[in-house]
Amino acid sequence: MDIVAELLAGSRLALSRAITAVENEYENATAIMQKLYPHTGRAHVIGITGPPGAGKSTLTDKLAKIYRRQGKTIGIVAVDPTSPFSGGAILGDRIRMNELTLDEGVFIRSMGTRGSLGGLSRKTADAVKIMDAAGKDIIFIETVGVGQSEVDIVKAADTTVVVLVPGLGDDIQAIKAGILEIGDVFAINKADREGAERLKAELDMMLDLDQVKAEWRPPINQTVASQGTGIEELIATIDGHIDYLAASGELARRRTARTRSELIALIEEHINRHVLKQISSSGQLDEMVASLEKRQEDPYAIVTRLLAAFLR
Amino acid sequence: MDIVAELLAGSRLALSRAITAVENEYENATAIMQKLYPHTGRAHVIGITGPPGAGKSTLTDKLAKIYRRQGKTIGIVAVDPTSPFSGGAILGDRIRMNELTLDEGVFIRSMGTRGSLGGLSRKTADAVKIMDAAGKDIIFIETVGVGQSEVDIVKAADTTVVVLVPGLGDDIQAIKAGILEIGDVFAINKADREGAERLKAELDMMLDLDQVKAEWRPPINQTVASQGTGIEELIATIDGHIDYLAASGELARRRTARTRSELIALIEEHINRHVLKQISSSGQLDEMVASLEKRQEDPYAIVTRLLAAFLR
Repeated sequence: MDIVAELLAGSRLALSRAITAVENEYENATAIMQKLYPHTGRAHVIGITGPPGAGKSTLTDKLAKIYRRQGKTIGIVAVDPTSPFSGGAILGDRIRMNELTLDEGVFIRSMGTRGSLGGLSRKTADAVKIMDAAGKDIIFIETVGVGQSEVDIVKAADTTVVVLVPGLGDDIQAIKAGILEIGDVFAINKADREGAERLKAELDMMLDLDQVKAEWRPPINQTVASQGTGIEELIATIDGHIDYLAASGELARRRTARTRSELIALIEEHINRHVLKQISSSGQLDEMVASLEKRQEDPYAIVTRLLAAFLR
Repeated sequence: MDIVAELLAGSRLALSRAITAVENEYENATAIMQKLYPHTGRAHVIGITGPPGAGKSTLTDKLAKIYRRQGKTIGIVAVDPTSPFSGGAILGDRIRMNELTLDEGVFIRSMGTRGSLGGLSRKTADAVKIMDAAGKDIIFIETVGVGQSEVDIVKAADTTVVVLVPGLGDDIQAIKAGILEIGDVFAINKADREGAERLKAELDMMLDLDQVKAEWRPPINQTVASQGTGIEELIATIDGHIDYLAASGELARRRTARTRSELIALIEEHINRHVLKQISSSGQLDEMVASLEKRQEDPYAIVTRLLAAFLR
């Protein structure tokens, strides 16, 4: 039996191997993704993002536990895009030592950051698809950070939970503005700390100012994940968002937009690879670089020439 | 006289307009960059990066002032990649109110983050080229952050200074690992704060462990930029790196690599745009997305078909 058949039959080992194949760009990765594709589209994908130290992993674990009690199977993809050179030291090297890892209904996978970040968001989306095809009902994408890379990664989610904490200082609060628009649900974690109410008030104000679409105003939940406080309420809020997505037609719209942008990214990746291979192996690229360095030509003139040569 | 001629003749207004054209992707942007290209390659470009709150702007200003005293002209591109939605609130909206802005020999420009980040690193590189053609001797790229986006942005620099501060907490220290390899020079700013010596010791250890190329071991400077402490020493270190780059041939190697990767990025951008336009306007893209949503095809099959249709 091949890896895809085994995965569809429920093998955890096959699931793990399939993700490894995608992560390391093994030769069989494309074939795996092709065969899995018809089995995707069933899971609900929840993104969990926010600054380092916000307690995202603990929160994810608690949410997963409650969904498990409801009989749902769980996948968790933990991504660390902020350390391109350390290979994902923050999340990747941490071993999640808790009862979740002993639960057959939960599959946890860390994604390092060995390749490029563009690659990372694609690989994350592929890992989600693999878990989806393997029959996981709820899949979490947990990612550190506040920048564009994290935004790209949580684009694979249907519902995005932005986790914040009181007391990270002015600079961090300023950065937060950057993730306002990706949050469908906000969780103020460590809400027993000083400043939680002020943070909630600030966030309320920012969300009121920012809100373009009045249909869904992102709710703010308060949690203390380490003590399990507020988790049931956060689940209720997330489920409310899932209901809203379905009832409003927004889920279909988001998934169509995602299918489109993933297809475009794949087309670009393959075309770029093909063209680069051609101009590298023919020695053209070296000649063009030499001509640029001598300022004999400008890059735009070269690109115009190339386009004419390559494209029908 | 056209904008490029004016810019080459020293007009600050033309310089400003040329950057605006590139930033907003005006129609004349390509023509401007084409005409400027032969006049680029003279400036030394210094990247200044590090976490929010490290005091990068103050440090940049102090460095600029000393270079000015040496009679050098200065360009500063201040980039904020961390807030893709707020339009660059951290650096972009701040007005630098100091004597530098009154100095005709200094040109400061903030770059917002309205487009995509991929676009931002290209636009930053273009802004640097424009200032270079305008005759600035030293150009600073100042960018907030610790992620891949910042790494991409400082790739346009010849010498990269990573600015760190004591006491940002464990998580931030962990993230730091991500920028170890891009630092040619390290500055521990706010070095009068508690923890500066420990941070230096840790950093020394990491750099010793990390060092692959023994030729240039990144030195660590301590500064208190707000008081002007350690700035002369930092300049001496940066100048030492500039000398090393020239003497070792590393400057030529870096610039060739940069020319190559910029050319590849430009080729990819144009090919992608062309292909996307073709498949969008013909209605093919919509059909392909619909077929994917019904799981009638998989994305890889579609890409294979497209490649055959498009490429010679």
